[in-house]
Amino acid sequence: MASARPSGRPRDPDVDRKLADAAVDLFGEQGWSSFTIEAVCRRAGVGKASAYLRWNGKEELLAEALTSRLGAITDVDTGSVRGDLARLVLQMTELYGGEHGRAAMRLAMEAAAMPELAERYTRIAQDQVMAARAIVRRGIRRGELPEDTSVTYLLDALCGGAMNHVLTTRLAPRAVRDAAPPAAEYAERFVDFVLTSVLTRGGAV
Amino acid sequence: MASARPSGRPRDPDVDRKLADAAVDLFGEQGWSSFTIEAVCRRAGVGKASAYLRWNGKEELLAEALTSRLGAITDVDTGSVRGDLARLVLQMTELYGGEHGRAAMRLAMEAAAMPELAERYTRIAQDQVMAARAIVRRGIRRGELPEDTSVTYLLDALCGGAMNHVLTTRLAPRAVRDAAPPAAEYAERFVDFVLTSVLTRGGAV
Repeated sequence: MASARPSGRPRDPDVDRKLADAAVDLFGEQGWSSFTIEAVCRRAGVGKASAYLRWNGKEELLAEALTSRLGAITDVDTGSVRGDLARLVLQMTELYGGEHGRAAMRLAMEAAAMPELAERYTRIAQDQVMAARAIVRRGIRRGELPEDTSVTYLLDALCGGAMNHVLTTRLAPRAVRDAAPPAAEYAERFVDFVLTSVLTRGGAV
Repeated sequence: MASARPSGRPRDPDVDRKLADAAVDLFGEQGWSSFTIEAVCRRAGVGKASAYLRWNGKEELLAEALTSRLGAITDVDTGSVRGDLARLVLQMTELYGGEHGRAAMRLAMEAAAMPELAERYTRIAQDQVMAARAIVRRGIRRGELPEDTSVTYLLDALCGGAMNHVLTTRLAPRAVRDAAPPAAEYAERFVDFVLTSVLTRGGAV
């Protein structure tokens, strides 16, 4: 493994794994402004040379690490629009609230300032749009949703809702956090809230 | 104004203003990990001594600057739940998409890692909860909303929606951004989406 071949040495998957974990953790904790290859290597306990041999700069290192560590958002056909959307919300609370959640949040936040990150974030956002479009298309075909259902507003409500839920739960007092429903239950209830009319029938609006 | 009284010197509002602007801008661009009093003073073009005399540490400087620069979320009674919520959404897209929007987003994001920021963010979040509670209470009294309307889900959808709208619009191609509705129109349409049932009546759900 660590034999001293001077070039063409096969990449050590263990070193790759350590560097990717360290890169995502560091970015999640401190963001882009203090992200350096040196700091990633220090955290990974890996020599700097390995990292400089592998990547053309810190943008590439971070982009690759984020791709490998942040789960992709996918479309799941559960047979009903409620079920499909609940799975989508669950994937999003896992993305933002899970092990690498802070890195995923920062990516959304800092992407506008950095072309390499922007591309990565745009890909995640596009996955969300594609999944939501497929779900809405099936919902319309099944007769569950009106023809003119807005994918954009639906995504703002559901993606944004998942993000807001994670942000506010994280800072809530312990007792409130403990009383919160499990993620899957939150996803179902929240989708029901968004899908079901809130306005009282015959209300004065 | 800038007379050389060695102590008890009145605070110069111009210096205060420059430091607050610089602190919020710097935090918005780079986040907490590279936030230092020195960097704020450099950016403000103000001597370090002024800042060290004014604040006990960078936490206090930033917390005070954020309080003065981020507009408070308030409850506005427009006469209907739709109007009230549209005003709330508009305030939130202005908070996150306005001049100090990146600082507001970072505050939401980084608050969990820093007690002083957590307190500041919790206050903003509480303003949102109080405004939403008042709006829902009026909506129920007017017969517009069912008695059991969930303030939590409503806020997740609306606050989160505003945040997601700002994040995705910011990164959209120029043509898409230009075609986006003005903020006030987005707020109204989005509130209509959330308040009005999406499920087709008699649908197979």
